[in-house]
Amino acid sequence: MNKKGENTDWKQKLHEIIYEADTPMGKWFDIVLIFVILFSVLLIMLESVKQIDEEYHRTLLTLEWVVTILFTIEYIARIICIQKPFKYIFSFYGIIDFLSTIPLYLSYVLAGSQVLLAVRAFRLLRVFRILKLVRFLGEASQLKSALRASSAKITVFLFAVLILSVMLGTLMYLVEGDEAGFTSIPMSIYWTIVTLTTVGYGDIAPITPQGQFIATVIMLLGYGVIAVPTGMVTVEFGKRSRALKTGEDKVEKFVHVNTQACPSCSKEGHRDDASHCYNCGSLLNE
Amino acid sequence: MNKKGENTDWKQKLHEIIYEADTPMGKWFDIVLIFVILFSVLLIMLESVKQIDEEYHRTLLTLEWVVTILFTIEYIARIICIQKPFKYIFSFYGIIDFLSTIPLYLSYVLAGSQVLLAVRAFRLLRVFRILKLVRFLGEASQLKSALRASSAKITVFLFAVLILSVMLGTLMYLVEGDEAGFTSIPMSIYWTIVTLTTVGYGDIAPITPQGQFIATVIMLLGYGVIAVPTGMVTVEFGKRSRALKTGEDKVEKFVHVNTQACPSCSKEGHRDDASHCYNCGSLLNE
Amino acid sequence: MNKKGENTDWKQKLHEIIYEADTPMGKWFDIVLIFVILFSVLLIMLESVKQIDEEYHRTLLTLEWVVTILFTIEYIARIICIQKPFKYIFSFYGIIDFLSTIPLYLSYVLAGSQVLLAVRAFRLLRVFRILKLVRFLGEASQLKSALRASSAKITVFLFAVLILSVMLGTLMYLVEGDEAGFTSIPMSIYWTIVTLTTVGYGDIAPITPQGQFIATVIMLLGYGVIAVPTGMVTVEFGKRSRALKTGEDKVEKFVHVNTQACPSCSKEGHRDDASHCYNCGSLLNE
Amino acid sequence: MNKKGENTDWKQKLHEIIYEADTPMGKWFDIVLIFVILFSVLLIMLESVKQIDEEYHRTLLTLEWVVTILFTIEYIARIICIQKPFKYIFSFYGIIDFLSTIPLYLSYVLAGSQVLLAVRAFRLLRVFRILKLVRFLGEASQLKSALRASSAKITVFLFAVLILSVMLGTLMYLVEGDEAGFTSIPMSIYWTIVTLTTVGYGDIAPITPQGQFIATVIMLLGYGVIAVPTGMVTVEFGKRSRALKTGEDKVEKFVHVNTQACPSCSKEGHRDDASHCYNCGSLLNE
Repeated sequence: MNKKGENTDWKQKLHEIIYEADTPMGKWFDIVLIFVILFSVLLIMLESVKQIDEEYHRTLLTLEWVVTILFTIEYIARIICIQKPFKYIFSFYGIIDFLSTIPLYLSYVLAGSQVLLAVRAFRLLRVFRILKLVRFLGEASQLKSALRASSAKITVFLFAVLILSVMLGTLMYLVEGDEAGFTSIPMSIYWTIVTLTTVGYGDIAPITPQGQFIATVIMLLGYGVIAVPTGMVTVEFGKRSRALKTGEDKVEKFVHVNTQACPSCSKEGHRDDASHCYNCGSLLNE
Repeated sequence: MNKKGENTDWKQKLHEIIYEADTPMGKWFDIVLIFVILFSVLLIMLESVKQIDEEYHRTLLTLEWVVTILFTIEYIARIICIQKPFKYIFSFYGIIDFLSTIPLYLSYVLAGSQVLLAVRAFRLLRVFRILKLVRFLGEASQLKSALRASSAKITVFLFAVLILSVMLGTLMYLVEGDEAGFTSIPMSIYWTIVTLTTVGYGDIAPITPQGQFIATVIMLLGYGVIAVPTGMVTVEFGKRSRALKTGEDKVEKFVHVNTQACPSCSKEGHRDDASHCYNCGSLLNE
Repeated sequence: MNKKGENTDWKQKLHEIIYEADTPMGKWFDIVLIFVILFSVLLIMLESVKQIDEEYHRTLLTLEWVVTILFTIEYIARIICIQKPFKYIFSFYGIIDFLSTIPLYLSYVLAGSQVLLAVRAFRLLRVFRILKLVRFLGEASQLKSALRASSAKITVFLFAVLILSVMLGTLMYLVEGDEAGFTSIPMSIYWTIVTLTTVGYGDIAPITPQGQFIATVIMLLGYGVIAVPTGMVTVEFGKRSRALKTGEDKVEKFVHVNTQACPSCSKEGHRDDASHCYNCGSLLNE
Repeated sequence: MNKKGENTDWKQKLHEIIYEADTPMGKWFDIVLIFVILFSVLLIMLESVKQIDEEYHRTLLTLEWVVTILFTIEYIARIICIQKPFKYIFSFYGIIDFLSTIPLYLSYVLAGSQVLLAVRAFRLLRVFRILKLVRFLGEASQLKSALRASSAKITVFLFAVLILSVMLGTLMYLVEGDEAGFTSIPMSIYWTIVTLTTVGYGDIAPITPQGQFIATVIMLLGYGVIAVPTGMVTVEFGKRSRALKTGEDKVEKFVHVNTQACPSCSKEGHRDDASHCYNCGSLLNE
């Protein structure tokens, strides 16, 4: 083959390693990546603890540089080996990857830019992409489809809870007033949701008998109302479980997909027997 | 047609726009109304925050006048275009609409009447009337029917919880006494419900070993007792879900109704093929 | 009839009114009794509030005397019209009735005996006896039978939760120590149950990182563990619900009983067609 | 028989009493052991309460010696009567038993070693081993198998909750900062889990409007998210319950096992008709 063919070949292999998980190397890359991400998040956590940061500042900074360099290499490799790099750069993961990489470089130009390091927590979402590998266990996808199926009901329910909270919050604001901490209507609504969801911080609590009576009603409401989302999700799970057992009326059709990503648009979720990308139509690597 | 006919015609059109949602104009009216109501509620919230009110008092007052004038126009239009205006004026929504409109006018006559503005939060209930438009999704009505079906069980349950709270609250009052905040029996009952529903503010907490022991029992009770409403609602949802799937034994019959309101008594929920109001018998607009 | 017959006749009628609810008079007696009991409980609540007691002490005392005299009459009537009075006197309800009646009389002899008034809260349990009237709705009895059916499972579950609490509480005592409020192992166990049941007062909260880490694990445990009783009760309700619908395999047999009480042993729950008491065999009033 | 036979015979009988529960003596041993363990745990609890320890130090120490001597005898007996003592000594229960026995002896050599007494709480786990006696009720084993069946789903769910907590915790750290108690990212994550699980201590609570808004979202999330484990466990229980009723497709096969322990490796759970240990193959006592 000529030079260009070799070049493409080399890129194609890198693409397989970075974007896919069907080859041993691809699997290793994913596992190493997960650990580096977890380590980088742990690092940010430790840096945020004042005592640790003061004592081990040098070590933490060195490790931060190691992580940053690894992320930089990964980011550049991702851009090089994809056919349409701009699609990746401006994708959700592309932006997260970029923001996770630059803070340390920026810190020499812009003071306070190290705050951006916190964006790295979002890189944890990659774990879900790699969880894709084990989705044939059916658990995650079953969970997701059950939640999606009850999303309309959950929306109506959340809407009702919010209107209820506004009404009860306004009532409590009028009944309790400033003394007990109900300083404004938004504050009262915040308190109502804290009570309705049975969280109950206690930073604000009613002190008048009328306020305590209304609070009691709100608590009993919240106690009963929690039954609604639970009931809805349980029924959805039950449906899925029965469908799987009887095999007669599948709630959803599952198709066996692999972890290959399209080399030009990087869409994923192609069927095992696919030869072209279902999104942009370009030829898939075998 | 003669003058009167034209007049009626004009009123009828207004009625269709304001009270119904079958025409494009009617739909637009509903959507605009929702936004004005949401805006008016947001306005009251902002006014209740002291800092914001101090800084932007003039702007907020102006906007308040805009909302008040819009509500006044709507209120008058509602009275004009209905055949029996007193039925509307003394209906639940009529009173809410009136109370939401007058506070600003009243504030020039009566000091402190701006407190009435809070009634506006109840106008949010109109959102549910307009939700009616999407009820063919079946979600809201299914939710409602499941809750209604288990209402007898829930009443028995709430009653048992209340008696339990009175008994346990009285016990805690005797055991703990004033020091820990259990200053009276109603206060103790309030604390018992706070604990039983797992809200747990912590504004009052037992300090004697005996009190803490009883508190532990109450908590475990509350932890187990929450299973009861959840179980009841789940079973109801399950029944409905199965009925929808098999199609054999519908739990409730659904009939297709439109959003038309009777021009004389303003009852809603007429069947699509109805020609007379099912409530007062007057002829419906086509 | 002779004197004795008339006497018995009069007692029998009183028995029917007080102990049963099949005659209009009997129903009225029950309803009035419920209201007097509710009123007496309300009275104790008001007395326990210092400000109210100081201001209206005279009125409250007068009303307390009215209630006490009514209870005294009821108690004497109950003893007179029953054939075996000692069975009633030493029954659970007999003792509660007695303790609810005497405190005011005792207060002239014994200082501080007014504390006994709190026993009156237990008279509220009579409400359940009268609820018996509506149990043909099936709700209360269905609730009870579902809870009884899962009681074995719930016991195992509660036992596991308790052992877990002891172990985790001891661990937290060692990790946190006195500073954070974990002053003794029982205190730590109390805190563990407060956390595991998601009540979370906040009177005691971990302050060391290790303690907060263990607390996090306990919370997630509690969050997951609550699924267990909910799941058990839901399944029981579901079984009952299905059994009622299909009508094939009833979980429990319901027999139509009336509210008559045996005139000699005052056992209740006789079948409609019963002529003898199922407990002591004496003849029942028609 | 010769000396050695008698010796073995005696050991075998002791083994039956200590390790098994099929003979009356064996049952008695188990019951007494449970009470001694419960008593020893109660003793540690009382010792940890400062006031009680000061007043009754002598009595508590004497009782502690009684328990320690009983545990020592039990420990030695367990080692003597088993064929392969090292298997027991280095087993989980063996180590717990040892650590529960030595603290008092150690306290004469090593100061502060009394802290080890807390390990005794773990001896409560023996209760579960003895619960084995009643597992033919099927409750405990059904509970366990349902939890095991949904463990994959629960793992995915817990994983999602943890990633969500890290992301939301980091967000809150940036939004709230030191003033409100969000001093570091781990602290913020701790708070997020406290909120998401609806525990809500209130030791840390958001004070800025933005923080309170995010807190509201987290609470509603937690309120909805609790439906997921509940739904999963409920469906599992439902499956088991239906399988038991129809008898057609058992989810798990139950085999009747006895409480005999292998005399050489002390494995338990042998079938009633077993003559050899399923683990090490040695002959079982009849």
